[in-house]
Amino acid sequence: MADPAVILAISGSLRAESYNTELLAEAVSVAPPAARLVTWGDLVSIPAFSEDNENDAGPAVHALRAAIAGAGAVLIATPEYNGSLPGQLKNALDWASRPFPDNVLRDKPVAIIGASPSPGGTARAQTDARKVLTAIGARVLQAEVLVPHAYRQFDSTGRLVDDDLRHQLERLVAELHTCGLTAGDETNATAA
Amino acid sequence: MADPAVILAISGSLRAESYNTELLAEAVSVAPPAARLVTWGDLVSIPAFSEDNENDAGPAVHALRAAIAGAGAVLIATPEYNGSLPGQLKNALDWASRPFPDNVLRDKPVAIIGASPSPGGTARAQTDARKVLTAIGARVLQAEVLVPHAYRQFDSTGRLVDDDLRHQLERLVAELHTCGLTAGDETNATAA
Repeated sequence: MADPAVILAISGSLRAESYNTELLAEAVSVAPPAARLVTWGDLVSIPAFSEDNENDAGPAVHALRAAIAGAGAVLIATPEYNGSLPGQLKNALDWASRPFPDNVLRDKPVAIIGASPSPGGTARAQTDARKVLTAIGARVLQAEVLVPHAYRQFDSTGRLVDDDLRHQLERLVAELHTCGLTAGDETNATAA
Repeated sequence: MADPAVILAISGSLRAESYNTELLAEAVSVAPPAARLVTWGDLVSIPAFSEDNENDAGPAVHALRAAIAGAGAVLIATPEYNGSLPGQLKNALDWASRPFPDNVLRDKPVAIIGASPSPGGTARAQTDARKVLTAIGARVLQAEVLVPHAYRQFDSTGRLVDDDLRHQLERLVAELHTCGLTAGDETNATAA
């Protein structure tokens, strides 16, 4: 049973000093009081996807699927590697997408954000993540946050120094929170 | 030191009965006598990519990089998951792309093929794989082979039943072989 107020926050980077993990921490700071951002931090444990064992996927995959199923919405922060989303993030989404007909991301509100040292600010990675999540059946928000030149965007306490970017993130998280609540209502309405 | 006659064959699928692994076996059958197709089959062992340990990546990643470095060319057969290449294949390419300036795929001739039950025949996955490999600096062949409706394309001995598709694969492997030999010549010429 999903808690519609929970937003599951997934960082696509395993780097200890990851800008994307930092961006998710800032999302926690700017979130509306009623939203509960829960970080999922076990990307490293997800094994390589194989169709042969998509129904017997091991504890890390089960935990990922349960975390998504239990959240009202999902917030993904993606770095950009070689012009696309990280392979391991895509691998986690491949697992989450099965079994396909009633996968845990279907109709789930998802927002995509990302930070990168490059001037593109993960634009290419976000485009691919959006395409993949749409193929999976998620309800991807139109809103986005791109953080270019990430090495100069955070102060020593991890806050975004650019007011516009911070407000953009604040609006995105608030919209995602509302969508999570609404999606829950619709699910209840359908079930009623 | 690369052997220019070696073509490293990588299947992006871990499925035991994978159409893409079968397609690579057919590539071996139609390859010119002078080409030596070598299968790299350890995709399952590649850990999740992290920038923190890109220079200390463990034995599976070292073996992958050595196999690519030792080949004149690379042939990748990709399935399509959620409208793109498999996460674990992208993850392997992320590892192969580092350290970036002199990564083992730079200037390496690479051809992309793929088989899928869907009518698109991995067109989307191949487009993304092409983009990623181009970003890495590989020399991606324009030629491609797309195998749609893969469940009816192979006979009981694993041969492609469609003459046109088989000849297309034969021409692609021959061109890749030639590119591998030529790339070796160019490298030698530059070094001389």
